Amino acid sequence: MSGAYFARADVGQLVRDYPAGPAFLARFAGMSVDELRGLQERRFKALMARGWAIPFYQRLWGARGIEPDDIRSLDDLPRLPTYDKADLMASIAAHPPLGDFHGLEGGLGRSPLIMHTTSGTTGKPQVLLFGPRGRETGNLLIARMAHWMGLADGDVVHSVYGHGMINGGHYVREAFTRHTNALFLSAGTGAETRSAAQVRLMAEFGATVAVGFIDYIRTLAEVARAEGLEPGEDIRLRLIIGHLGTEDRRAVEAAWGGARAFDWYGVGDTGCIAAEGPERDGLYVWEDAQWLEICDVEDGTPLPSGARGDMVITTLYKSDVAPCIRFNTHDISALSPGGNPHGLPFRRIQGFMGRSDNMVKLRGINVFPHAISALIEGETALTGEFICHVRGQQMTVTLEHKAPAHGDMTALAARLRAGLGVEVAVRLVGPGATAADTQIETRQKPLRLIMEGG
Amino acid sequence: MSGAYFARADVGQLVRDYPAGPAFLARFAGMSVDELRGLQERRFKALMARGWAIPFYQRLWGARGIEPDDIRSLDDLPRLPTYDKADLMASIAAHPPLGDFHGLEGGLGRSPLIMHTTSGTTGKPQVLLFGPRGRETGNLLIARMAHWMGLADGDVVHSVYGHGMINGGHYVREAFTRHTNALFLSAGTGAETRSAAQVRLMAEFGATVAVGFIDYIRTLAEVARAEGLEPGEDIRLRLIIGHLGTEDRRAVEAAWGGARAFDWYGVGDTGCIAAEGPERDGLYVWEDAQWLEICDVEDGTPLPSGARGDMVITTLYKSDVAPCIRFNTHDISALSPGGNPHGLPFRRIQGFMGRSDNMVKLRGINVFPHAISALIEGETALTGEFICHVRGQQMTVTLEHKAPAHGDMTALAARLRAGLGVEVAVRLVGPGATAADTQIETRQKPLRLIMEGG
Repeated sequence: MSGAYFARADVGQLVRDYPAGPAFLARFAGMSVDELRGLQERRFKALMARGWAIPFYQRLWGARGIEPDDIRSLDDLPRLPTYDKADLMASIAAHPPLGDFHGLEGGLGRSPLIMHTTSGTTGKPQVLLFGPRGRETGNLLIARMAHWMGLADGDVVHSVYGHGMINGGHYVREAFTRHTNALFLSAGTGAETRSAAQVRLMAEFGATVAVGFIDYIRTLAEVARAEGLEPGEDIRLRLIIGHLGTEDRRAVEAAWGGARAFDWYGVGDTGCIAAEGPERDGLYVWEDAQWLEICDVEDGTPLPSGARGDMVITTLYKSDVAPCIRFNTHDISALSPGGNPHGLPFRRIQGFMGRSDNMVKLRGINVFPHAISALIEGETALTGEFICHVRGQQMTVTLEHKAPAHGDMTALAARLRAGLGVEVAVRLVGPGATAADTQIETRQKPLRLIMEGG
Repeated sequence: MSGAYFARADVGQLVRDYPAGPAFLARFAGMSVDELRGLQERRFKALMARGWAIPFYQRLWGARGIEPDDIRSLDDLPRLPTYDKADLMASIAAHPPLGDFHGLEGGLGRSPLIMHTTSGTTGKPQVLLFGPRGRETGNLLIARMAHWMGLADGDVVHSVYGHGMINGGHYVREAFTRHTNALFLSAGTGAETRSAAQVRLMAEFGATVAVGFIDYIRTLAEVARAEGLEPGEDIRLRLIIGHLGTEDRRAVEAAWGGARAFDWYGVGDTGCIAAEGPERDGLYVWEDAQWLEICDVEDGTPLPSGARGDMVITTLYKSDVAPCIRFNTHDISALSPGGNPHGLPFRRIQGFMGRSDNMVKLRGINVFPHAISALIEGETALTGEFICHVRGQQMTVTLEHKAPAHGDMTALAARLRAGLGVEVAVRLVGPGATAADTQIETRQKPLRLIMEGG
C-alpha cells in the first residue's frame, strides 16, 4: 500500500546509522577497532537471527550440522560454509521464480520488494532482491563513497550504468538522487542513450563526474572528440568513479584531460563494499556495513593480511530481505597491511585482482590473468589490451604494442614473471589485434584468458 | 547531503495528503464539491506564492501587466496566460541548461533535484525537473491510479516504459516500488531488454499486469507466441495499464487473452492527471492534485463540459520545483457531463482525442485524425491501422481492411463523417499497407496525418 516502502525503512535513522559526507569522518575517524567490533557484533547478531529463519540458510547450515548456538560472534563465522551465485541459482531452480533465500515465504506481495538482476557479465543474469531497509542502506553506502572521493554540492553526475532489469543503473541513480545534492544524468548504456547523444548531454549540462564502466567512459572521450567536443575543455570531468579493478587508471584519466579516477568494489547482492579515499591508496572496506574475509581459493580458509584470495562477504546491514552471510564473490583481492592516514578503523583492500573462476593454476601457482593490466600500466608503448592463452602448463601473454617491431620482450617477460609468479611467454602484436579474442567490442567485460587444447 | 531528499519530502504526510488504495475512497467518496474546492484553493494559494517567486512566471505574467493581487482564487486563473513546451524550450535556450522555470536560482546543487527528459514523441526531448515533494506526490498519484484500476497485493507488474534519461520508466518504477506491494519488473524498451527476453521474463515471474505503450504491449503478445508462450495461458495478464488514448482497447485485450485494459492520461511536467476507474467509463481527474481546464484551441478561452479543446493543467501539488500553472498540453479532450457511480467529487474526461498541433481545420471544423481509432474500434474487418491525407479542404482516410475488396465504404464514410464532423473520402487497403506512411515500425507513436501540397 502507498508509503509501504518508507514505513519499513526509517531513512532518517539509517542516515544516522550509516553516515556519509562530513558525518562519516565525524563518526568513524579515531574510532577504535574494539568499538567498531562492538557495532559489528550487534549487527551480526541481528543478521544471524534473520539467517536462521530462512530456508536457504537452514538447508546450507543444517547440512553441516551447525546449530544457532554454534555461531555466537564473528569469531565463529568461519565455521559457516560459504555459498555463491551457483547456490542462489539452484535455490531459484528449486523454488521458482525467486528462490528461498529472501526470507519472505508466504509473504510475497505483502510488503515492498525491489527486484533486479545482475548484468550477467559473468554468466546468466542472477536475481537480486532487496527490502526497503537493505536497499536504502546500500544507497547510503554509494553516497558515502561518492562524498569520500570528493563529490561536492553542484557536481553534475553522468551515469552510464544500464537500466532495464539490471540493478546497476537504478541503484546508482537512487543513491545520487536521494542522498546527494548532485544533479544526476541517468544516461545509461549506449543502447539507452546513443554515445553521441551522451557526450552532447555531458557538454550541455556541464557534467563534472562520470560513473560507470571504465571501458565505456574511456570510449566516450573518443566519441566526444568525434563530435567536436574536447575532453577537459568542452566537458570538464573532475572525477571518474568506476570499477577500475585491473583497468588502466592512467589511460582513462588522460583521455578525459586529467580527471581523477577512483576505484570502488561491490557486487549486486551486497552493494558497495569498498572504495578508494582521497589519497587513492587502497580501497577502504565499509566495515560497519560489510564483513570481509579473504579466503583461500581452494580450501576456503581465511587468509592473513597480504595474501590473495576470494573475497567472501557478510553484509551486516542486510537483515531484512535476502541476507548475505559468507557470500563468495569469487573476486580476488588482498588486504593491505597497516593503518590509514584518516585514523579510520577500517581496513583497506588492494582492489579487484581478477576472478578465481578465471584463475589458472600453472606449476602449482595460482595465476590471475586480469592482474596483467596493473602490471603493464606504466608501459606507455603498450595500448593496455592483452589476451592470455594457456596450453598445458604454459601461458602465452599477447600484448598490444603501438609499434610491435620495437618492443622489448625480455623486460616485459621479466616484469610479468615477477608479478604473476610464473614464467610466461610474451608476444607483441599491433593495436587492435587482440580484439577478436577479447571480444572487447561486444562484451561489457573483455575476455582475458583462453584455455586451449585438453 | 545524505538523506536530503527525504528531509524535503515528508513522505508520511504526503501519503495522508494524497491517499491511494482504500484510503482514496475513504477520503473522497461523498466529499462535496465545495469541500474539494476548499482544499484546491489552499493548495492553489501556496502554488501561486511559489509561482510569483520564479523568473519564468514573473516574465510570463508581468508581460500581461498581471499583479499578485489579481489572482486571488481559482476563479481568477483564466486571467493568467497559458504556456507550453515551446515556452519552456525558450526558457532553457535563454538560461541554459535548466531554464529559469524551476525556482532554484542560485540554489542549484544545494538541494536534491530530479532531472529527466520527455521521450521526445512530439519533438525534441524536453527537460523535466522535480523537487522531492513534487516527485513523491507524482509517484503517489500513479499508485492511486493503479489501485483504482484494481492492482492488488501479489500482482507482478511488467513495465515497458523506457529508462535512460527518459522520465517514464523511472517515474513508474518509483511509484510501484515505493507505494505498492507489487513485484515490479523494470524491463524497459526493447532496446533495454530484447522483446523475446521480455516475454520469457513475464512468463518466468508470472506477470499479471503490464504497463507501458499499448502498441508495444500488443506486439509482445505476438512475440510471446513466436517464443512458444501462449498469452492468457503461459502469461496471464489481468490488467493492462497504458495511454490507450485513441488506440484500440479491444485489440490489445484480445491479444492478451482477455486481460482488461485501462486508460490513463498524464504528461511529464504534471505527472498523472486522470485515470479510468473500475467501470472504465471516462477518466477521473485527480482534482485534489490537478486543476484541469478544457480550452478553445484557437483563442484559449475555457470551454463548457462536453466541448472538445486543449487540456490546460495547473498542478496544485507541485509547488517546490518547476511548478505548472496553466500548462497547455495541446492534447485534446472533453469533460464528461454528470456524476459518477462512486460519489467522488472529481469530474471525468473522455481521454486523449488527439493533439491540437495534429489538428486540421476543414471547412471551419476542427478535425482530429487520432479520433478515428475510436470510431472504427467496432469494425472487426479492419486492422485498426489508418492514415489521413489532407489536400486543400479534402481529407482522405486510408483504412487497412483484412479483405479490402469486400469492405463497405459507404457505411464507413458515414460513420467517420458523424464522428469527425466533416465529409471525408474513404479508401481501403490491405493489412500493412499504411505502414510506410504511419512509420509504425520505427516510431513510438505512429503518424496519422499527412498534409499534402500547399
